[in-house]
Amino acid sequence: PLCGALAAELLALPESLKAMTKDFFEIHLTWLQENIKKGQDQGVLKPDLDVITVSRFILNALEGASFVSWAMSDDYEKSSGFDLILAGILRSEA
Amino acid sequence: PLCGALAAELLALPESLKAMTKDFFEIHLTWLQENIKKGQDQGVLKPDLDVITVSRFILNALEGASFVSWAMSDDYEKSSGFDLILAGILRSEA
Repeated sequence: PLCGALAAELLALPESLKAMTKDFFEIHLTWLQENIKKGQDQGVLKPDLDVITVSRFILNALEGASFVSWAMSDDYEKSSGFDLILAGILRSEA
Repeated sequence: PLCGALAAELLALPESLKAMTKDFFEIHLTWLQENIKKGQDQGVLKPDLDVITVSRFILNALEGASFVSWAMSDDYEKSSGFDLILAGILRSEA
């Protein structure tokens, strides 16, 4: 959400802030990658997920969610599709 | 991609164009909903998908993808996660 707000203003940002936004996304990606790996190690997440691809996909989906819900003036929580992401990455035999 | 570019400039747009961007998303959502329904009717897509939720999720994910890849200056095609979306909605018994 915060990075969504930042990213939304990207076009209007000076170069230094564009680099910051990129760093910000990188931080999110690194966090996602570490935690998906942890989840796999603990047997909570599907072991066959590609950590890099899935992390980027989650970032995309949540960035897009904050963005679209803002354009549509509706509820981010209800429209983020986070349940669908979870359903896609959790091990089903729980 | 086009609507991503539009949406990215949303903050800077006058009210009339904000409404257009919203309409633009609505057109995408309607198209997605119709085609997911068709895909279900033809037995290509999973029959238990919630059409509204999944359509919004696809829009979110692809908007986010165009947005994040632009901020990261990398390749939209390679990072959109479209394969993951397909894997999530196609009937597996194919």
